[in-house]
Amino acid sequence: MRVNVIEFEPIGRRGECPEDESLLDSARRLDVDIVRLCNGVGTCGRCKIQIVTGEVSPITAKEKEVLTVKETDRNYRLACLTRPLGNVKVHVPPESLTAPQRTQVEGLEIDATPEPSFQSILLEITPPTIEKQTADETGFLAALNRNRNRNQTDSAAAAPGFDLEALRRMPQLLRAENWRARAAIRNNEVIAVEGASTRWCGLAVDIGTTKIAVYLVDMENGKTLASKGLMNPQISYGEDVVSRIYAASRSEESADKLQTLLVEALNESIALLCAEAGVDRLSVADAVIVGNTAIHHLFLKLPVSQLGLAPYVPALRSAIDVKARDLGLETASGAYVHLLPNIAGYVGADHVAMILGTRLAESSGVTLAIDIGTNTEICLNNRGEMASVSCASGPAFEGAHIKHGMRAAPGAIEHVRISDDKPVIQTIGGEAPAGICGSGLLDAAAQMRLNNVMDSTGKILPHPGVRVREDGMKEFVLAERPGREDITISQKDIRELQLAKAAIRLGIRALAEEMGIAESEIDEVIIAGAFGTFIDVESAITIGMLPPLPRERFRQVGNAAGTGARLALISMTERRKATEMASRVRYVELAVISDFNQKFAAASAMTEL
Amino acid sequence: MRVNVIEFEPIGRRGECPEDESLLDSARRLDVDIVRLCNGVGTCGRCKIQIVTGEVSPITAKEKEVLTVKETDRNYRLACLTRPLGNVKVHVPPESLTAPQRTQVEGLEIDATPEPSFQSILLEITPPTIEKQTADETGFLAALNRNRNRNQTDSAAAAPGFDLEALRRMPQLLRAENWRARAAIRNNEVIAVEGASTRWCGLAVDIGTTKIAVYLVDMENGKTLASKGLMNPQISYGEDVVSRIYAASRSEESADKLQTLLVEALNESIALLCAEAGVDRLSVADAVIVGNTAIHHLFLKLPVSQLGLAPYVPALRSAIDVKARDLGLETASGAYVHLLPNIAGYVGADHVAMILGTRLAESSGVTLAIDIGTNTEICLNNRGEMASVSCASGPAFEGAHIKHGMRAAPGAIEHVRISDDKPVIQTIGGEAPAGICGSGLLDAAAQMRLNNVMDSTGKILPHPGVRVREDGMKEFVLAERPGREDITISQKDIRELQLAKAAIRLGIRALAEEMGIAESEIDEVIIAGAFGTFIDVESAITIGMLPPLPRERFRQVGNAAGTGARLALISMTERRKATEMASRVRYVELAVISDFNQKFAAASAMTEL
Repeated sequence: MRVNVIEFEPIGRRGECPEDESLLDSARRLDVDIVRLCNGVGTCGRCKIQIVTGEVSPITAKEKEVLTVKETDRNYRLACLTRPLGNVKVHVPPESLTAPQRTQVEGLEIDATPEPSFQSILLEITPPTIEKQTADETGFLAALNRNRNRNQTDSAAAAPGFDLEALRRMPQLLRAENWRARAAIRNNEVIAVEGASTRWCGLAVDIGTTKIAVYLVDMENGKTLASKGLMNPQISYGEDVVSRIYAASRSEESADKLQTLLVEALNESIALLCAEAGVDRLSVADAVIVGNTAIHHLFLKLPVSQLGLAPYVPALRSAIDVKARDLGLETASGAYVHLLPNIAGYVGADHVAMILGTRLAESSGVTLAIDIGTNTEICLNNRGEMASVSCASGPAFEGAHIKHGMRAAPGAIEHVRISDDKPVIQTIGGEAPAGICGSGLLDAAAQMRLNNVMDSTGKILPHPGVRVREDGMKEFVLAERPGREDITISQKDIRELQLAKAAIRLGIRALAEEMGIAESEIDEVIIAGAFGTFIDVESAITIGMLPPLPRERFRQVGNAAGTGARLALISMTERRKATEMASRVRYVELAVISDFNQKFAAASAMTEL
Repeated sequence: MRVNVIEFEPIGRRGECPEDESLLDSARRLDVDIVRLCNGVGTCGRCKIQIVTGEVSPITAKEKEVLTVKETDRNYRLACLTRPLGNVKVHVPPESLTAPQRTQVEGLEIDATPEPSFQSILLEITPPTIEKQTADETGFLAALNRNRNRNQTDSAAAAPGFDLEALRRMPQLLRAENWRARAAIRNNEVIAVEGASTRWCGLAVDIGTTKIAVYLVDMENGKTLASKGLMNPQISYGEDVVSRIYAASRSEESADKLQTLLVEALNESIALLCAEAGVDRLSVADAVIVGNTAIHHLFLKLPVSQLGLAPYVPALRSAIDVKARDLGLETASGAYVHLLPNIAGYVGADHVAMILGTRLAESSGVTLAIDIGTNTEICLNNRGEMASVSCASGPAFEGAHIKHGMRAAPGAIEHVRISDDKPVIQTIGGEAPAGICGSGLLDAAAQMRLNNVMDSTGKILPHPGVRVREDGMKEFVLAERPGREDITISQKDIRELQLAKAAIRLGIRALAEEMGIAESEIDEVIIAGAFGTFIDVESAITIGMLPPLPRERFRQVGNAAGTGARLALISMTERRKATEMASRVRYVELAVISDFNQKFAAASAMTEL
């Protein structure tokens, strides 16, 4: 039998794939963890992959039931029902990967032409002599002038000033590098001078309340050299931003600590990513950092007490450039950090980055973009007119306030089906069930509703899988664990989820109302963020969290804020777009909409709405 | 008898003065220490004062012998021969004060129109509400726009950016000050936001190798609010800059320490001066700092090793603006420090400030300006063409390397005359002689030459005042001190002085030669610096340190570098002048002039040259 070679993108895993092995089995053998809820029988439809090149077995009838026409047109297949007929290259979309591989750094590829905030210039400096005692800075400027004349650019430009730290490094560097150097010049300021072979990099960071995504990017071609996801260490001051705002407002020490925790985590990431990419941290000549308004303020050590009290205003709305060293970041000598603009106290720079990364502002129809998290921000672009809203969806999706809740980690139940009144579960990494994560909770609730384990008010009904605890609380058993406590979903857990999903749906409805359109007019729903990538959209529709639009109108794009940060990092045009767009987006304050209570109650029904 | 009131300027001392008391005696009674070498008999001519207002006794014949016509025209008198005829106001020129009151902060009054580096703007900000959740920064910018429109200035200017530290302070400040604030905006950057009643100040600093002069200036009217002289604490790393360059080059720790010593001394001075003037350090919105190139580099923590090795080049020649906090200075939130440009490795920003302060660049004739110190820098303006030289004059004038040498402090012999072969001395503060300071050394050498205690080669001759020590060395006794070692000037001391004065004279001659003029063509000699103010010009001419020009061509101006720093502080036009002038001044390297040895030998003769 002939043996073919398979390559999985974007993970970059390669290996042999015999013709009698399904792509799903090849993936498992090569440690590419694709979702396999029905265990490879073609019914769950979760192992969607896209054939990029190569020939594979013809599409099956079962696949035609599960895949949309748009998907088949784009060469989507179910991995469990597809076999290779030669060498193949396969793209695995993020939603088909199990959680540990679907890290928060994944997102859309960036599509902008590099247009950095600085110029990179190679210089040959004439060494000083006793007859011509040229100061190092004077020699540098003369070489710069020669370079500019030669390239006939900026020849009339004023002599640049020097960043002090760059200047401090220069004398030894010029002597060590035999008077050849590469300079980074930004807005007529020399921000870094390094050896002639230096290739400048940049850092894009999306700081979430729970997780941080860090990308090291080549500033010449815009390629991501390395990336990393990590936990936000501020979590020791509270799961949500409100507790952190409270901590920072109460003591200067806590405010300091909340800032340095982030900076230390970023410095560690810079070191790791630079090592991975084989570059020096002194070549990191620019950075773009995004986060929600509170995180943005805590990172800049701006006061946050006014964010925690009505009328909840930010100290800073505009984009700002700050010297990286003023924040304690270890980068190139005089590098700056750019923070994208905020929109409001609870609609921050990460939302702006999400809009940028999804290209939402450029869509001509009616498009909704939604980033689900502890706080969920939603933006509606109604044919060029944009409005955003912020919903306090709470930490249920992160596993908090749920009895058996846990984060998306190995052993977490991430997908649930109820078949013959019995739950079928899939855990992350296929390990023994340890708890339930956000997407599992959503699936479970939807399946409970579809199988009449729960009514449309969210009340758990009598059912073979339901039992009553000693305290009188009803619970649905997801996984029995002999010798250990069973994993269940209780009536209280359902109520927590209900609050979260009602907040989100209310936000969507408020935006539609603000624009005077019906939800059904929405042409596309972009779901951004790591959690949003994991969820089963059908389940979200079933419990009324998302409007019941045709499935092909939904697009799960991964970390769009990270994508937006990378776009703003490599291109000044993108930064300008972000600023222009942030000032154009109307902020809708949910707290002041009319009939809030009735609308919230309506949005909390656990059924298709 | 009627009792009048006298006021001494610029010291600001007031008191009664009976009509039968000389102004000199009144001064002594009121603790204004005017030089009194002949003890009030009108022969030494050192107690010159200027009558500003009021009537005094008619001029005496003795005064007419001592005072020049120019001086009498300007109401100069000898204090010892003048009595009040009513209330009088008297100006005491620095050269008539004994050393402790002639601090290094004295200098010419500044004569430029304030034109600061920043705009001061009063703002009334609209507080945010829940309906209009305006970010603090947005409200600030809106108020700024209203102000600009009202004043019809800069209405088209782009929105300024914020200094991070200024932004951090703003939210609490706006709430505490009821949304009224005063902002300092520099080059479209908000560098400080303080209460509405704030009056912005600035700091001018001249850091000498030995001493530091600090001035706190009102940025609105250019007036000096308070000033202070202090020792340069770097002195613990060596008396001269070469030892400090060596220390900083050898260890990073020493380089750090040399910088922080200066910064701590300046922070202490800022606190003291602000307390004296009754202002907050947060209102210090700008600073100009000057020093020689080595001090300039050590203060900025630029590398200095290349300054200590041929070809002795600075790292930085151009003027530079640095955030005060990047240097550790405690000023207004985002204030900058401006450092004037350097000219060469041993002709620094203090020289540029001296040229600025003396208005040397604006003179149309042939003018020489000289700042005597451990290193002496000289600039010659030959009808618009300028050249500077640096001479290693050594620390003899500071009292170092001289057996009984000491700094200008109480008890130091500061003036000497030989009368009937016996030395007549005056000590600082009239105290028992403790040693001899620079001006005393110069006087003593000149008097020794005039009285044939020494020949024109500097050799001490047999004389009643000369004795031979046990080691065979000749010495001239200045003060006998029964029970303690007598204060003497030895042959070795004379040789030290001879090296110092030869270096200076060689520098003057090299500049004249460079310009192709004779020394006699020099129209004016401006002597700057604290030491230069104390010296007896006749004495300096007698030993050939200065050329034998008519006495009225000399002008002693005090700390001109401090004056230049204050000018650059209050006026951007002056800063531009400094930059333009620094690039125009030709640097003459003494080490490479032809026939150096012969010329140096010729310049070392201890006689009028």
